[in-house]
Amino acid sequence: MELKIDKTMPSDAPVGVFDSGVGGLTVAREIMRQIPNEKIIYFGDTARVPYGSKSRETITKYSRQIVRFLQEQKVKAIVVACNTASAYALDEIEKELDIPIMGVVKPGAKAAVEATVNGRIGVIGTEGTIGSHIYSTYINQINSRIIVTGKACPLFTPLVEEGLWQDPVTDEIATRYLSGLVESGIDTLILGCTHYPLIRSTLGRIVGEGVMLVNPAYETARELKKLLEKKGLLNQKGQELGTERYRFYVSDMADKFQTFANSILKYGILSAKTIDIERY
Amino acid sequence: MELKIDKTMPSDAPVGVFDSGVGGLTVAREIMRQIPNEKIIYFGDTARVPYGSKSRETITKYSRQIVRFLQEQKVKAIVVACNTASAYALDEIEKELDIPIMGVVKPGAKAAVEATVNGRIGVIGTEGTIGSHIYSTYINQINSRIIVTGKACPLFTPLVEEGLWQDPVTDEIATRYLSGLVESGIDTLILGCTHYPLIRSTLGRIVGEGVMLVNPAYETARELKKLLEKKGLLNQKGQELGTERYRFYVSDMADKFQTFANSILKYGILSAKTIDIERY
Repeated sequence: MELKIDKTMPSDAPVGVFDSGVGGLTVAREIMRQIPNEKIIYFGDTARVPYGSKSRETITKYSRQIVRFLQEQKVKAIVVACNTASAYALDEIEKELDIPIMGVVKPGAKAAVEATVNGRIGVIGTEGTIGSHIYSTYINQINSRIIVTGKACPLFTPLVEEGLWQDPVTDEIATRYLSGLVESGIDTLILGCTHYPLIRSTLGRIVGEGVMLVNPAYETARELKKLLEKKGLLNQKGQELGTERYRFYVSDMADKFQTFANSILKYGILSAKTIDIERY
Repeated sequence: MELKIDKTMPSDAPVGVFDSGVGGLTVAREIMRQIPNEKIIYFGDTARVPYGSKSRETITKYSRQIVRFLQEQKVKAIVVACNTASAYALDEIEKELDIPIMGVVKPGAKAAVEATVNGRIGVIGTEGTIGSHIYSTYINQINSRIIVTGKACPLFTPLVEEGLWQDPVTDEIATRYLSGLVESGIDTLILGCTHYPLIRSTLGRIVGEGVMLVNPAYETARELKKLLEKKGLLNQKGQELGTERYRFYVSDMADKFQTFANSILKYGILSAKTIDIERY
C-alpha cells in the first residue's frame, strides 16, 4: 500500500477514525488498547447510518465529506473503521489524500489468509461489503487458490443495536445465515462488519471450534501501529492518561452515541459533539 | 387543521408523497386504490433511511429538503407518508408552506379514537414516533380520557425489509414487543410505522381478535380525498390508465427500490430516478 505523506504533520497529531455510526468503536477500542499513546478523533455518521444497504456512489460521497471534516481537525492519518466504506470508498479517496489512510478490509483479509489451513475462508458483512467482493479480491491477490465464500447478514446490525447480543433470536438468525458457510467447509470466518465482534460468542458457538474467527478491528489496530512506525508518525510524547485524548463527533443523536460508547469502551467518554456533516 | 392554499395550483397537478424509503409505498398504494385519478410523485429518502432512530432536528432538516424538491415538481399537495417525519417535522413545515400538507398520524389517531370501545389504545412505531408521544397528544386532544400506551418496535422494519413477513423470528419478536400492550387491555392498536401493514397478519394473530388494528395508510388516503375535495383540488380530468401518472424518485439504490415497489404495488412501476437530495 503506497501512501502519500504530509511531512509537516506532527507525530502528536491525532488519528482520525470514522464509521457509519457506533460500530467503528470496536476498532477505536482496539487502537486505544494497542497504541494507547495515540490521540483519536472519532466520527460516527449517525444521521445517515447504516451504510451497508446503500450504493457505492453514496458511500463514497459520505466518506469524502467525513474525510474533509477530519482533515479540518488536522489528523495525521485516517482509519476507515467501516467495512462498507473501506470496500466502496477507500481506493478513490486514497488517491485524493496527502496523509496516510487505511481501511479494515486489507488487514482482515491478510489475517484470514494467515489463519486458514484448508484454503476456505468465509466472510460475513453487510450487503454492500459482500456485494463488492472486496475481501475475495484482496485474499486472492495474496493467494489465488483460496476459496472465499461471502454471506450478507443484514439483520445482525439491528439485532446488535437492539442489545440482543445473547439471545435465542440472534442464535436463530445466525444459524440461518451461517449454516451454508459451515457446510461449505470453511475453517476461517472474517467478521466483516464492525458490529459483529459484539456477538462474537454467539457466532463462535454456531460455527463451532473448528472455525477461526478473524476480527479485522484487532488486525487494523496492529497494521495502524506498523504504518505509523514506518512513516515516523507514531506519537513519541507520553500522554497524560485520561479521556481528553479521545474526541468524538457524530452527525446526530450524540446522547445515544455516548451511552453506546460507554457500554463498550473501557474509558468513559466525556461527550460527543454533533456536527452538520452535509456541509463538508 | 387550517391550510394555506395556492389558488393558482391546477387540480390536475400531482400529489407529492414522501417517506424515508420504501415504507411509504403502503400509503401511496392506498391513495392509488382510493383516488385512482390522482397523479403521484413519490420520493423515498433511501440514502438516509431509516428516520426512526434519528433526531427531530435531523428529520426536520431532511423533510424540508424533500418538500423543496416536491415543490420544484409543482405538486398541489403533500402527504408525509412517514410516521416519524409526521411526528417530528410536519407542524414546523406546515407553517412554511402555501400548499396543503398532511401526515399519517392525525388520520391514524382519529380512526383509533373512533374504533376503541374501552378507551385503551396501543401504538407501535419507531423510537422517534413513540418518543414524540404524538399519537397520544392527538388522541387526547379528541378525547382526554383515552389511555394511550406506546411501544417502540425497532426490529420490525429490518425484519420486514429482510422479507421475514411470515416467520417464526418475526413471531417471537412481535410477541416480546406486544405482550405488554396486550396485557394492558388495549382493544385498538395503531400500526404507527408504514412498514407494519406488511406484517399485519402476524401482528393480528399475536394481539388476538379482540384488538382492532388501525392502519394509518388507509385512513390517510381517505383524509387526503376529503382534503382535496374540500379545497377544490380533486383531479376532475379522467386519467388514462397506466403507470405514467406515478413517478418515483429516490436518493439512492433506485433498482432495489423498484424491486420492492413492484412487490407491493398493483401496477408495476416503470422506473425510479435517483436525485441528490442534499442539494435541496
